[in-house]
Amino acid sequence: MRQVTVELAARSYTIHIGTDLLDRLAEYLEKAGLTGRLALVTDSNVLALYGTTVLEMLSEAGNTVVPCEIGPGETSKTLDNAGRLYHRFLLELLDRTSAVIALGGGVVGDLAGFVAATYMRGIPYAQVPTTLVAQVDSSVGGKVGVNLPETKNVVGSFYQPRIVVTDVSTLRTLPEREYRAGLAEVLKYAVIADADLFQKLESSREAILARDHGILEELIERCCRIKARIVEEDETERGPRVVLNYGHTIGHAVEASSAYDRFLHGEAIAIGMDGAARIGAALGVTDPEFVDRQAALIDAYSLPRGWSELPVPEVMTAVAMDKKRAGGAVRFVLPSAPGCVTVRDGVDGRVVHRVLERIKEGAR
Amino acid sequence: MRQVTVELAARSYTIHIGTDLLDRLAEYLEKAGLTGRLALVTDSNVLALYGTTVLEMLSEAGNTVVPCEIGPGETSKTLDNAGRLYHRFLLELLDRTSAVIALGGGVVGDLAGFVAATYMRGIPYAQVPTTLVAQVDSSVGGKVGVNLPETKNVVGSFYQPRIVVTDVSTLRTLPEREYRAGLAEVLKYAVIADADLFQKLESSREAILARDHGILEELIERCCRIKARIVEEDETERGPRVVLNYGHTIGHAVEASSAYDRFLHGEAIAIGMDGAARIGAALGVTDPEFVDRQAALIDAYSLPRGWSELPVPEVMTAVAMDKKRAGGAVRFVLPSAPGCVTVRDGVDGRVVHRVLERIKEGAR
Repeated sequence: MRQVTVELAARSYTIHIGTDLLDRLAEYLEKAGLTGRLALVTDSNVLALYGTTVLEMLSEAGNTVVPCEIGPGETSKTLDNAGRLYHRFLLELLDRTSAVIALGGGVVGDLAGFVAATYMRGIPYAQVPTTLVAQVDSSVGGKVGVNLPETKNVVGSFYQPRIVVTDVSTLRTLPEREYRAGLAEVLKYAVIADADLFQKLESSREAILARDHGILEELIERCCRIKARIVEEDETERGPRVVLNYGHTIGHAVEASSAYDRFLHGEAIAIGMDGAARIGAALGVTDPEFVDRQAALIDAYSLPRGWSELPVPEVMTAVAMDKKRAGGAVRFVLPSAPGCVTVRDGVDGRVVHRVLERIKEGAR
Repeated sequence: MRQVTVELAARSYTIHIGTDLLDRLAEYLEKAGLTGRLALVTDSNVLALYGTTVLEMLSEAGNTVVPCEIGPGETSKTLDNAGRLYHRFLLELLDRTSAVIALGGGVVGDLAGFVAATYMRGIPYAQVPTTLVAQVDSSVGGKVGVNLPETKNVVGSFYQPRIVVTDVSTLRTLPEREYRAGLAEVLKYAVIADADLFQKLESSREAILARDHGILEELIERCCRIKARIVEEDETERGPRVVLNYGHTIGHAVEASSAYDRFLHGEAIAIGMDGAARIGAALGVTDPEFVDRQAALIDAYSLPRGWSELPVPEVMTAVAMDKKRAGGAVRFVLPSAPGCVTVRDGVDGRVVHRVLERIKEGAR
């Protein structure tokens, strides 16, 4: 069992990482003060796998549990679904002494967290992530929200959970593709802040792909520790937190251009990280050797670096939109070495364009 | 010109109260750092009165103004309208460096503030209240939100504005009934914290009803000062802020039972304050003489204390719902003397019932 605490004064909380923690969820929630009326928000896949066990356990511990099921996948992260949850919370008489339990991946965590942040102007919630991407990234740091048809995550809040309970055993049931997409986020953390983790991804490929519990706990703890430190420094993303967007400028544009149904988020980020490194190399920020080393890792975990159908003009437009939103300059997080990135504003559009052409050709 | 500062560390802001301040709005916004792309959220009534002037002034000052019009009245404070505003903000390329200007009454301020709180996880906003109830109450303290069909204000955030610009001249155009409803909120502040203000309401009725600018500035400053101190002590309503709900337990139930279209909020609060004082008298908390003094003031400003169609069983149910939401006890804020209230949990339902019967009979 490993613990990471996010130190945010009155909003501090602990991330518990271990094996079979779901069996003791009631106990963890009680320690965090989350008892009574609990809304268990989860998707239909997770509900089928863990629903009965978790519902029974929480009820036996004396809680009144209100199961709230959403459909699986990114298309569930809507304002309409938030509206449905508010409605259900009202019907079930949830109040500020109640709590929300987000059991599932990033979609469940983001949506349930946003509803917790805004129902009665904020009620407590717990993150219980069951996918690798949620365990290493989205369950920590309080970024919650929903998508609009045009743009992902454009409506939301910064609203910290009271506790995060991360059971690596739940990764056993995760489809291979989603698991690998989660490893892209692990790679992101390695590049931005942990050279040792980068080496581990290189040296322990087999154990990692075998989902060895020991190594999983270690990877997740390292990522959470990095994220905790960054969030402590910059909870509302006014400055240093931007490094967490490594791979995201191109990654988001790739997701949007592919209508969010071709790539998983982690896959798009893998493409975006390869792209960012190549931009870095073109600008003299990134050692070409690092570009190759990172590309080898992306390949080793069967993540994509290219896309033959990449609509370059569309992606360029999306990057330009991003530009306007950062107040006038294209902003990229660029790697300089494993564990070390720099933020560069005003990257030349021609450099971006050349790298996008490379992504288009580079499809394996 | 009067100023009240709400001291909340990094979230502190100043309320500017004066005559013809709207003419210098661009200057105030600039001082608060709100320039560039500005979404001017307002309703069609306010737009017709001040829209052209404000738009021109803000544009001439070098801002890009995006006018966002909503329909007037409580029915506009919906999640759907929030969705429409998000969509428009996206189309107009508003980002975290942009700001929202809420020009209007409580509905505009609550809706625009909520959208500002949640668009891109929070962008800055200014409150520019144009009704008395907004100037003395809803524009200050950061409570923002929208209604659901079942319940008012059940979705929202605590999100402070960067500045409040209160121009008492805008009250000239306020319909008489709305103006009087705003005075109910002033009475609320007098009862909870300002015996001197209570006396002023008694002694200066004519000047107040004549909307004398000098006395208006004083009334608004006093109310804002009280609210600022309470909000500083308890920003997220975990404790002492509950006194601001004086008159609201019955008031909200009256609003809900009358489908929100018979009474203005202030009118319902007037009924609720009279009810709370009578409950207080029944419990020995409130001097019967105070009950009469407050009733005389409510009458003096032509506000209601009774309603012959009050559906007593429905209102009792609404109060019981309120009970469940406070975690098991009916909570009332009860006056003990002008400027002094106490919070009482677990008020006997029979006492509430008798007082509701009195409200039903007491219709003038």
